[in-house]
Amino acid sequence: MNSLNETPDILISGGTLLTMAPPGEIVEDPVIGIRNGKIDFINQGKIPVGHCENAREIIDASGCIVMPGLVNVHTHLAMTCFRGLADDLPLMTWLNDHIFPAEAKFIDRKTVYAGASLAIAEMILSGTTTFCDGYFFEGEVGRAAISAGMRGVIAQGFIDFPTPDQPAHSEKEGVAERFVKRWRDRSPLITPALFCHSLYTCSPETLQTIKAVARRVGVSFQIHLSETREEVRLIRELYGKKPLQHLHDLDIMDENTIAAHCIWIDEEEIDLLASSRVKVAHDPESNMKLGTGVAPVTEMLRRGIDVGLGTDGSASNNDLDLFGEMRMAAKLHKLFTGDPTVLKAENVVEMATIGGARVLGMSDRIGSIVPGKEADIILLDMRKPHLTPLYRPFSHLVYAARGADVVTSIIGGRIVMKNRRLLQIDLELVMEEVRRIAARIKSK
Amino acid sequence: MNSLNETPDILISGGTLLTMAPPGEIVEDPVIGIRNGKIDFINQGKIPVGHCENAREIIDASGCIVMPGLVNVHTHLAMTCFRGLADDLPLMTWLNDHIFPAEAKFIDRKTVYAGASLAIAEMILSGTTTFCDGYFFEGEVGRAAISAGMRGVIAQGFIDFPTPDQPAHSEKEGVAERFVKRWRDRSPLITPALFCHSLYTCSPETLQTIKAVARRVGVSFQIHLSETREEVRLIRELYGKKPLQHLHDLDIMDENTIAAHCIWIDEEEIDLLASSRVKVAHDPESNMKLGTGVAPVTEMLRRGIDVGLGTDGSASNNDLDLFGEMRMAAKLHKLFTGDPTVLKAENVVEMATIGGARVLGMSDRIGSIVPGKEADIILLDMRKPHLTPLYRPFSHLVYAARGADVVTSIIGGRIVMKNRRLLQIDLELVMEEVRRIAARIKSK
Repeated sequence: MNSLNETPDILISGGTLLTMAPPGEIVEDPVIGIRNGKIDFINQGKIPVGHCENAREIIDASGCIVMPGLVNVHTHLAMTCFRGLADDLPLMTWLNDHIFPAEAKFIDRKTVYAGASLAIAEMILSGTTTFCDGYFFEGEVGRAAISAGMRGVIAQGFIDFPTPDQPAHSEKEGVAERFVKRWRDRSPLITPALFCHSLYTCSPETLQTIKAVARRVGVSFQIHLSETREEVRLIRELYGKKPLQHLHDLDIMDENTIAAHCIWIDEEEIDLLASSRVKVAHDPESNMKLGTGVAPVTEMLRRGIDVGLGTDGSASNNDLDLFGEMRMAAKLHKLFTGDPTVLKAENVVEMATIGGARVLGMSDRIGSIVPGKEADIILLDMRKPHLTPLYRPFSHLVYAARGADVVTSIIGGRIVMKNRRLLQIDLELVMEEVRRIAARIKSK
Repeated sequence: MNSLNETPDILISGGTLLTMAPPGEIVEDPVIGIRNGKIDFINQGKIPVGHCENAREIIDASGCIVMPGLVNVHTHLAMTCFRGLADDLPLMTWLNDHIFPAEAKFIDRKTVYAGASLAIAEMILSGTTTFCDGYFFEGEVGRAAISAGMRGVIAQGFIDFPTPDQPAHSEKEGVAERFVKRWRDRSPLITPALFCHSLYTCSPETLQTIKAVARRVGVSFQIHLSETREEVRLIRELYGKKPLQHLHDLDIMDENTIAAHCIWIDEEEIDLLASSRVKVAHDPESNMKLGTGVAPVTEMLRRGIDVGLGTDGSASNNDLDLFGEMRMAAKLHKLFTGDPTVLKAENVVEMATIGGARVLGMSDRIGSIVPGKEADIILLDMRKPHLTPLYRPFSHLVYAARGADVVTSIIGGRIVMKNRRLLQIDLELVMEEVRRIAARIKSK
């Protein structure tokens, strides 16, 4: 693996490296070699003499934190088209009176591609290098990601009413199978997956059909779960069970299931999550904005459940900045438990990197800076007034830094942002396209 | 007032103006004239023909939101020197084992000036144009503010143990009187005030002595109040009363008293706040980080109590960005009340501008864009991916914008930041000085 006798493609030299392997490790003044998209070696001190000085690109990381790119485990990228369209509303009003109608009227291949492209630009500009998206026309999200050089899990969405990409007569099993086949092995950047919206919008048959396909073809299955008290009430009314018990009885819970939110769950349901090794996506900003509640994250972590951080969509957040999400998670759980010593800065950075990779089943490839892993690396310039002085890097990442402090981003060994300039995306064009879509929505 | 026949010093033309008079008002494509430090006129449409085209400076605000500068009603600027020094700790451990000892050892005139200068740089870069500070060597904060062109309320701090600026033998009444006399009428930017740290660090005699001076010389009196459950327990133990009852019985509560935090207060204490017209500083990020609790802000606002937003010091936040504080306030109270319709975006922007001005007793001079008021104005560039598309300006300010989106800032008619470049502060010098202080603290 460590091949100093080969010329690296990229060398990153200097600064402070947080490898996240193990979480909390700090390497001062590192030299990181990247070759063929992967991390080739990590040394300390001077650039090793030999082939290294011929690297195609040498990045000076002086004054910077070098760390794994962030992993956003739950989002709906195309919803950037609806950013700020409807705020300060309860989830069900927001969903039924604003989002679902807007989706029915305005979501098509073109809007999904445009919205996802804008979202990817925003994510790269704020340090995310892998996302996990669930929506409709999910292939368009894959296309946008490949074009931008972004890594993503794209989960095709299913719901029990006609959607723009699946009219009433769609046969879900075939749609799911074709989607995975089309996207499997298409690009090392893209991992296909399947997403059932929720227990209240998908019948037991839909859930079981999609999960069966996911098992057969070996991809992850995602779902919104126990997000509101109203949802819990509804599921009890419909099936006489708590949501997680319902999911369990349908035989859907396993280590390839990602449950987003998990707010209104009790001890017994946490037991079910832990024993079935279901992964959890925690979305504190969205949960707070919709006033839905607080997921028992410290308890889940204590029980060994893998929890990652997600932004949710821009219509309920309203941005995709995982630094904001880290800060919110750290502060929310201190408040919720009344204990300022929980979710320490190091734990929160872990959730946003290698912890998120575990949630997506990708921790063998991403989430930490280790030779052999994908070179998904970000640099933050710490020479800013709001980051001065610097006593402890992890503290600043969670409590003071923001996405805009990320200056350079590398995904799979390709530089996608350099000195805050996006290299693979025509940002003006992308923003203009979404503005045009928004103008149509406004005039509806 | 509206004097189109005089040449303005500065013209701001174009964009979207949020006057905050009344809150919620939106003026598209405004022309704002600034003369002699004050807002001279507001027109709509083209720059009026006459003397205007000769303005010393014409600022093109196309694509920008133009709004009153933000008002930070509670902070301890010099604590930027301790930013990130000690995190993930309970308030009393953090205060007694880390902050008080560090203050005893490292706080002097020089560190206060350096820390305050860095804090002011950070505040201007994130859209704040008025701060209200309480600390020691408060005159140094005044000097730093004047040098930077920043507006501030500087409240000299008092506490019942020897401090670097008041050794054991200091006579508090004289210190307080001399401070106010020295700073009154020194600069239109500076308003002196007095600050007793808390009920648990100041005796009834200290509180009454300082409040008496404040009343006699007509300045505001500030105090930390009901921040932790522990504090409430302690005050009950010491005085047999709830904190607000104690303050009331000492005859300290009036409309020139600003109480910071007010977390652990009951119905009866809210009645006392309302009837005495005490002002409240709400610091959600600090309260969450220290796990202290949630102030009943929606209830206080419903009762007509003036509530402003503060960041608290950088040692417990860990930044001074009021945009982050706006977002946190909006989301926290939605969660706390379980009602996503409370603290709407418009209400939160009000708290951070004209509401904060009311808390400081300065709403006749700042907090909204009205002819005759001080020209404290900021411009945010909305042509960014995370702010696209733009349906409703107030929504974006609270749920998507961040301090770094502020491009230009004017305080008292003087441009202090232009295109994100600070014009009155040598930023590199200021950061270097604080890094030197931090190096000494680290090696302690």
